Amino acid sequence: MDLPSFDGWTCPLPLQNYPTIVMGHGSGGKMMNDLIRHLFAAQFQNDFLEQLADATALDGLAEGQRLAISTDSFVVSPLFFPGGNIGELAVNGTVNDVAMSGARPLFLTTGFILEEGLPMDTLGEIVASMARACEAAGVSIVAGDTKVVNKGHGDGVYINTTGIGLIPADVHIAPNRARPGDAILVSGTMGDHGIAIMSVREGLQFETAIESDTAPLNGLVEAMLVVTREIHCLRDATRGGLAAVLNELATASGVGFEFEEERVPVRPAVQAACEMLGLDPLYIANEGKLVAIVDGEKAEAVLEAMRAHPLGREAAIIGKVVEEHPGMVVARTGIGGSRVVDLPAGELLPRIC
Amino acid sequence: MDLPSFDGWTCPLPLQNYPTIVMGHGSGGKMMNDLIRHLFAAQFQNDFLEQLADATALDGLAEGQRLAISTDSFVVSPLFFPGGNIGELAVNGTVNDVAMSGARPLFLTTGFILEEGLPMDTLGEIVASMARACEAAGVSIVAGDTKVVNKGHGDGVYINTTGIGLIPADVHIAPNRARPGDAILVSGTMGDHGIAIMSVREGLQFETAIESDTAPLNGLVEAMLVVTREIHCLRDATRGGLAAVLNELATASGVGFEFEEERVPVRPAVQAACEMLGLDPLYIANEGKLVAIVDGEKAEAVLEAMRAHPLGREAAIIGKVVEEHPGMVVARTGIGGSRVVDLPAGELLPRIC
Repeated sequence: MDLPSFDGWTCPLPLQNYPTIVMGHGSGGKMMNDLIRHLFAAQFQNDFLEQLADATALDGLAEGQRLAISTDSFVVSPLFFPGGNIGELAVNGTVNDVAMSGARPLFLTTGFILEEGLPMDTLGEIVASMARACEAAGVSIVAGDTKVVNKGHGDGVYINTTGIGLIPADVHIAPNRARPGDAILVSGTMGDHGIAIMSVREGLQFETAIESDTAPLNGLVEAMLVVTREIHCLRDATRGGLAAVLNELATASGVGFEFEEERVPVRPAVQAACEMLGLDPLYIANEGKLVAIVDGEKAEAVLEAMRAHPLGREAAIIGKVVEEHPGMVVARTGIGGSRVVDLPAGELLPRIC
Repeated sequence: MDLPSFDGWTCPLPLQNYPTIVMGHGSGGKMMNDLIRHLFAAQFQNDFLEQLADATALDGLAEGQRLAISTDSFVVSPLFFPGGNIGELAVNGTVNDVAMSGARPLFLTTGFILEEGLPMDTLGEIVASMARACEAAGVSIVAGDTKVVNKGHGDGVYINTTGIGLIPADVHIAPNRARPGDAILVSGTMGDHGIAIMSVREGLQFETAIESDTAPLNGLVEAMLVVTREIHCLRDATRGGLAAVLNELATASGVGFEFEEERVPVRPAVQAACEMLGLDPLYIANEGKLVAIVDGEKAEAVLEAMRAHPLGREAAIIGKVVEEHPGMVVARTGIGGSRVVDLPAGELLPRIC
């Protein structure tokens, strides 16, 4: 397992006295102050956060701009997995949700629920990788909260992040905007994150290491929006995978979706793992891949822009939006048949993010 | 224990099939969709939330206005306590944090971490009381997220709420704005919430029932700001109580605080409970009380406005800001002495909110 390097944080005396989280770190007193100042504020430093007020004041909003807001709690188990950890997942996940509205993500808040007994070094590594992920995505953590729960009542750390961003005036991306004739695009290979989590959780060994694809997608979205504003829907394919996203968009838009299964990019190692485990890669979670529904005439140009971006090199047009069978997603299979790709019923792999 | 009445939500068939939360409710498929649509969206209904997108688009922002943002996770144990439950606490707590910047709270997001096995009825009651609390505070829940963790890895339900609001252009409230000559005001009795939680947790019986004071303070703040914009600091006295708030403000502003202990309003039942338990009401958490640092010349007028508001009837001027002993809070005691009121060190009563 490739742990993130834990640099940039030197554990000061008040924290060194406590090598693990204790209940007092959540009780509003000196110990919590130390934790906030010496760990969180030190890592996430920015002028907004320095206000250390109950609420952080943000300025710089312009008339008529719309705000995008999204919230997500992260409970992934284990906390560290091939390709990432819960901290960068918490930053990238919310950055991506905000970006899926076409907004430029600007600010994050973060709420930690720490379990008594969590090693302070583990928390330090997680926080340091959150800070790096923020830098990579170009966002700032502007407010935070810390709670501590008794040993046995958490799972090390749960993280909530809430993100806000600004939507350009001429961008109108929404789940109900898919229209017959639109093209269905995916930004890369499907199923990497879910299989990476599963492999470490179940102790599976594959010939090729499968790593989580956790990444901030806001840069990719910006590159796509430069080509055209005729991007109708965007969604990152997390829990429930590609199948869930396509079903939700087809239902919201009242249209049918058709795609060719063999055009969906899947890494050979993920494909092999899925076959071994009896899973369908269409239902496996991703953390750095998006699905785009784009005006059919602009699809090739958007695809080109995606492939020119480091996070879209394996992008593909996989199908199209049709008038027939509204709310239904149909996959054309390699042997000329077709099957309905339904919304997953329930649990495939819990605690995935 | 006075449970909130659970009306307005009729459990539809797909949820009735599952009388408790199961892992599948968090896995991005049909079961989670049912939970979101039939419980959360049904209770929190508003046009913004109906977007059901990854991020919610908000409009109506005006040029030059500053945004206030605050986040808080709630892990209170037990989930139901005299005078409230975790749901209304989660709404009021974040409404209050936003209001403490002088902002008008507008929107909340909410992230649920549900423990497998949580009775669906319990979740229903909590969500219904969140909806009522939102209505009382005049805010809308515009985005949400649900995760489910394995039995034994949570405590029924943890709730994160993040709130945003708009700060009027001429309001400048910040922890570092206390000046010598300012008056220190509190909006009512101290310690009610903490003692209410402690009583139910420890099975204590008092002659008079002690209830949590959980309440939304944005209306009170608005009434105070009508009187004057010379309100320098505002803070709700939650974890760490009045003592923590005064210490944080004195430190941030680089001034000394002095107050008369007997002017601090404390309910006789809370006072008696504190004496019995060996606790100091200055350190006990509140969930519906604020501390205000106000220009000395405006203090009486602000006090009058507070007392005219239902949530400020027992407001009091308890002391003043001084140049001496910067960063230090001194209480004058009834018998003519004085003592330093320090920041609480760590845990007094964990899992209070």
